[in-house]
Amino acid sequence: MDVCLSPALIHLYDVEKYVVVIIDIFRATSSICYGIDNGADAIIPVAEVEECLVYKESHPEYLVAAERNGEVVKGFDFGNSPFSYSREKVAGKTVVLTTTNGTQALHLSRKAKQIVIGSFLNLTALSDWLKTTNENILLVCAGWKYNFNLEDTLFAGAVIEQLKGGGYVLDDPALAANDLYQLGKEDIKAYLKKTSHSERLKQLGIEDDIAFCLNIDITTAIPVLTDTKLVKLIA
Amino acid sequence: MDVCLSPALIHLYDVEKYVVVIIDIFRATSSICYGIDNGADAIIPVAEVEECLVYKESHPEYLVAAERNGEVVKGFDFGNSPFSYSREKVAGKTVVLTTTNGTQALHLSRKAKQIVIGSFLNLTALSDWLKTTNENILLVCAGWKYNFNLEDTLFAGAVIEQLKGGGYVLDDPALAANDLYQLGKEDIKAYLKKTSHSERLKQLGIEDDIAFCLNIDITTAIPVLTDTKLVKLIA
Repeated sequence: MDVCLSPALIHLYDVEKYVVVIIDIFRATSSICYGIDNGADAIIPVAEVEECLVYKESHPEYLVAAERNGEVVKGFDFGNSPFSYSREKVAGKTVVLTTTNGTQALHLSRKAKQIVIGSFLNLTALSDWLKTTNENILLVCAGWKYNFNLEDTLFAGAVIEQLKGGGYVLDDPALAANDLYQLGKEDIKAYLKKTSHSERLKQLGIEDDIAFCLNIDITTAIPVLTDTKLVKLIA
Repeated sequence: MDVCLSPALIHLYDVEKYVVVIIDIFRATSSICYGIDNGADAIIPVAEVEECLVYKESHPEYLVAAERNGEVVKGFDFGNSPFSYSREKVAGKTVVLTTTNGTQALHLSRKAKQIVIGSFLNLTALSDWLKTTNENILLVCAGWKYNFNLEDTLFAGAVIEQLKGGGYVLDDPALAANDLYQLGKEDIKAYLKKTSHSERLKQLGIEDDIAFCLNIDITTAIPVLTDTKLVKLIA
């Protein structure tokens, strides 16, 4: 089991050989897990606001989600807050979600055997499923502007923790991720408060989102990529 | 103060704005620190054995160092063991050293304000000097085959530890490096035993080298890059 600490390192792995877990804790993969668990038919992650609009033109029934500087982009249904992915809003719907880091990570992993989505929200369900795969597992941290970030790495460490005892060989990034998780696990929110990223998110006024994204095991769905759409994995 | 966890991430930093510390604990930067401290006039790091030979042709007086699979390359003066950089062998000499990861990191950092070399051997001398620079500091981990490794990251964390209280703002990789150092500092050798890299080095039969590279503060020289050569910094 390996951990790719940033999309800029993914060329170092033969992604074809792996089941890949995409991790973008604040907030894309948390929102995706919540939305799929709440009955969204599909979530389509895109990198640019303009791509959202192209989807909306051909599929007016789609919901489109995009933010700029913490504000919902004009004409869009909602932003990137996980609270927007409630059952009332997304059940039976397809959502096109704009996310830079998460989309990069997905795109760069597209040759993987399978791509699933992880967050603290579905930690145990995801880990239990990973134990059954019998495939090499690569945990891909979407990071922040192509660089390492603590929250995604900590979550990778949490998955490793759940898979311990399964005979997995860990690469150095995986060892580090799990060690960092040991330091943070007692109070993840407090641990992450020191990060610069956390400070930036605070300034965006999305502290409630952050707290929500650190809820553990409030969902059980595992979003899986099929073609361009994330849908609920039928295990 | 920032930490670049791998040469593959260095494009994310404006190296022009930094004093850069190159870190390749097993074994290049440890050998370089030891050699310069032991009176080598200069050490020239190169990526390929063939480059060594080009230097040797134009400068027959240079010592050349290269290894393949743990053995000294035929016709070379010595390999990459720090024990080869003793005063008896290198004082007053110029050494051309073949090192893949370290040379990559140096090359990619070449636009920095200044490039110095760090290892556990010169930890405190280096840190004390860094405190006086009044420049942004970037600790560049040479890593292993362009990816993150624990030993270089741990050393970055050790430097950060020494500079604590200096008002430095740390990026996420720096926070992680320092946290990992907290986990490993009581017994760095034991901490690093779990890494795959350590296992690989063990198979090369260079356990004595590894133990030596973890000696703290047995040297005081700070190697600095001038043009293509590493020489002793005159502070």
